[in-house]
Amino acid sequence: MKGLFITLEGIEGCGKSTQLGLLREHLAARGFDVVTTREPGGTPAAEAVRAILLDPAHKALSSTAEALLYAAARAQHVDELIRPALEAGKIVLSDRFADSTTAYQGAGRAISMETIQTLHNIATRGTWPDLTIILDLPAVEGLRRAARGGAPDRIEQEPLAFHERVRGEFLRIAHAEPDRVRVVDGSRPVDAVKQEIRDLVDQRVGAP
Amino acid sequence: MKGLFITLEGIEGCGKSTQLGLLREHLAARGFDVVTTREPGGTPAAEAVRAILLDPAHKALSSTAEALLYAAARAQHVDELIRPALEAGKIVLSDRFADSTTAYQGAGRAISMETIQTLHNIATRGTWPDLTIILDLPAVEGLRRAARGGAPDRIEQEPLAFHERVRGEFLRIAHAEPDRVRVVDGSRPVDAVKQEIRDLVDQRVGAP
Repeated sequence: MKGLFITLEGIEGCGKSTQLGLLREHLAARGFDVVTTREPGGTPAAEAVRAILLDPAHKALSSTAEALLYAAARAQHVDELIRPALEAGKIVLSDRFADSTTAYQGAGRAISMETIQTLHNIATRGTWPDLTIILDLPAVEGLRRAARGGAPDRIEQEPLAFHERVRGEFLRIAHAEPDRVRVVDGSRPVDAVKQEIRDLVDQRVGAP
Repeated sequence: MKGLFITLEGIEGCGKSTQLGLLREHLAARGFDVVTTREPGGTPAAEAVRAILLDPAHKALSSTAEALLYAAARAQHVDELIRPALEAGKIVLSDRFADSTTAYQGAGRAISMETIQTLHNIATRGTWPDLTIILDLPAVEGLRRAARGGAPDRIEQEPLAFHERVRGEFLRIAHAEPDRVRVVDGSRPVDAVKQEIRDLVDQRVGAP
């Protein structure tokens, strides 16, 4: 791949979406061709799957069906948007990717990690982030911030213990893959977080 | 499982839906507690996935994403409807199930049979039909019949060669699993097909 695939990860309310926009501005100002996207979603069919996944009406959705829906949305996202953009030499910035499934469906829902890895292999077929930044903060603080965004979606409605497991899994992934995954303290002010992310990404793409 | 799981399979226009209704009437008249359902679908979340799968607007849907969406809908269908009904001792009649994924996504889309089997294992977790009846007829005749039903959905829009591969795969499955799968000639009049299906099912549940 000629491009670069960067993902931002973390629990609800960690500031990913804000920081993604700021990072896009920075890279665009440096002259890079940047595509920003999100999961679940990023293409029309995947956004339709997102609507099912986040709709609080689908309380009966089983853990297995949920994991398969995330994988389906990801497969479409990879095939239709991410891989073509990387092949065209672009920088792809995604708000969440496969690590979220490992954290939410693996640790959060207790789907076996073997099944999670199988689904990753089917959905991504080897398209994997070059750099992943995890914005870390206590789950209770993240949920407090997310609550300001309005009515909670189906995932945000999960209890605190669920979000604690998700946070723990993100930190475990970072520990297991230090070359790909970096942890940034997301509890600090937006500007401080922004600067640390810029420094990490500039190291990767080359200083200006 | 105390109940009995019967699936009807076949290409577009083979008469599954009509025959499912007739078989339900027969079994209900014999006093059995019968649940009729369909794939993709059968529950609210799975029907929402069905809407994505059949919508002709989703022309860009990749083969992998499609296979994962069918698996997701099936997992929900099994967890929320099929398994509980079988545990309650009911007869479940489903218009399509996993064999359709083997035929349409495996043979039709050329997804590897290893991936198809992996998805079956994840989605069904061992809930598998006791009896499957395949209504067989030439693809060209099935498509001609299906065309009377109005505007073609995303799958019906596939070319004839696709539907020929699907038909061939259904026949291969029947050959490979003669104890579970029976082929009925679906090109005959409705009443003749109805009687043969009743005989096959009565053999299975015990003659009246």
